[in-house]
Amino acid sequence: MKGVIGILGGMGPAATVDFMARLLAATPAQRDEDHYRILVDCNPHVPNRNRAAAGEASPPGPVLAGMARGLERQGATLLAMPCNAAHAYTADIRAAVSIPFVSMIEETGAALAARHPEARRVGLLAVDGTLAAGLYQPYLPEPVLLPAEAQAHFMALIYRIKAGDTSAKARAEMAAFAATLVDAGAQAVVAGCTEVPLVLDGGDVAAPLLSTTDILVAATLALASAG
Amino acid sequence: MKGVIGILGGMGPAATVDFMARLLAATPAQRDEDHYRILVDCNPHVPNRNRAAAGEASPPGPVLAGMARGLERQGATLLAMPCNAAHAYTADIRAAVSIPFVSMIEETGAALAARHPEARRVGLLAVDGTLAAGLYQPYLPEPVLLPAEAQAHFMALIYRIKAGDTSAKARAEMAAFAATLVDAGAQAVVAGCTEVPLVLDGGDVAAPLLSTTDILVAATLALASAG
Repeated sequence: MKGVIGILGGMGPAATVDFMARLLAATPAQRDEDHYRILVDCNPHVPNRNRAAAGEASPPGPVLAGMARGLERQGATLLAMPCNAAHAYTADIRAAVSIPFVSMIEETGAALAARHPEARRVGLLAVDGTLAAGLYQPYLPEPVLLPAEAQAHFMALIYRIKAGDTSAKARAEMAAFAATLVDAGAQAVVAGCTEVPLVLDGGDVAAPLLSTTDILVAATLALASAG
Repeated sequence: MKGVIGILGGMGPAATVDFMARLLAATPAQRDEDHYRILVDCNPHVPNRNRAAAGEASPPGPVLAGMARGLERQGATLLAMPCNAAHAYTADIRAAVSIPFVSMIEETGAALAARHPEARRVGLLAVDGTLAAGLYQPYLPEPVLLPAEAQAHFMALIYRIKAGDTSAKARAEMAAFAATLVDAGAQAVVAGCTEVPLVLDGGDVAAPLLSTTDILVAATLALASAG
């Protein structure tokens, strides 16, 4: 129990709190002191990843690099970032620090290969920035994506979740997006946005659902326990 | 929306995550960027406050002062700490930094005076460390406390909550402790431990319940919005 976990957060804030809650729940702990120390920079003022991908906002890389340096200076021994789209700036983060950065993209790729080696057609629920940066493409032989119109509605739903809507209606809409991918032949679905698990559980999808949040939790705890 | 909120956390970790979730829910925000930046040092290795009060652990003051300095260095413009017992070390924290520290004890005292000026007999659910340090006594004309044996059972329940038990049984037990105070004449009950609201809501108590967590949320946001 030696690692100090640094979290590059705030993208969005609720997803960061969800990640923290899942970290705690997944830590074998009976007492406060059994938990890891967690340093969090929950910074909702990082330039918008989707707008940056569209050339409409300044690149988030330098801001994320500064947050990473600050967390390292505070004593973090490893870093994690519960936002898929922001992983487009992984190189900026890794170049800024000397501690490991656990990539939820790479870890999800590894989890896919380990859990579903037979799956060729894999569904991906992800925001425009993640798709534009091509983050998951290296891991998906035949990605199954939402049609353009549905993707626009999916983005609107993500922004509603960011505004606090985790209603039954929001849950039903997210389940319908996942069903669209399964109907299109997806043998597994990647919840490739940390807002998705706020309104979608495995039981809501008729194919295996990979929560990138939970995958990042497991990988972060594995590294933290190692050192 | 200028303040950067620093949180001295980890006492316990779930209470810190609960505080963060309530901060987000209470922030008027439609988009990520409407939220405050929050820097968190969730440090579950702060010496145990109850054991320190009993002379069985080293004083947490220096550790808390170091955490406060670290958060200030990171850019926090105000500090809050969602742990009542740790407020016994408020002077150490305030002496360590030049930014304001919002005391949940002082804020709860102010809320009591404002909301229940007529209440003389006020119930207090608090851990041994909080009681031993006499943190709430200045604000409670006639404190109504649990009898010694019930207090021991209350402490055991708090440690169960810290171990992750937020079951219906835990909820019922906490409601019973609050009922004991009301039956003893409490005109209001202070949930003077941040683990309490994890299993107790206002609707569970037959007298007004003051959640020190929610009071700290409101005071923190008021100060953050001011600058």
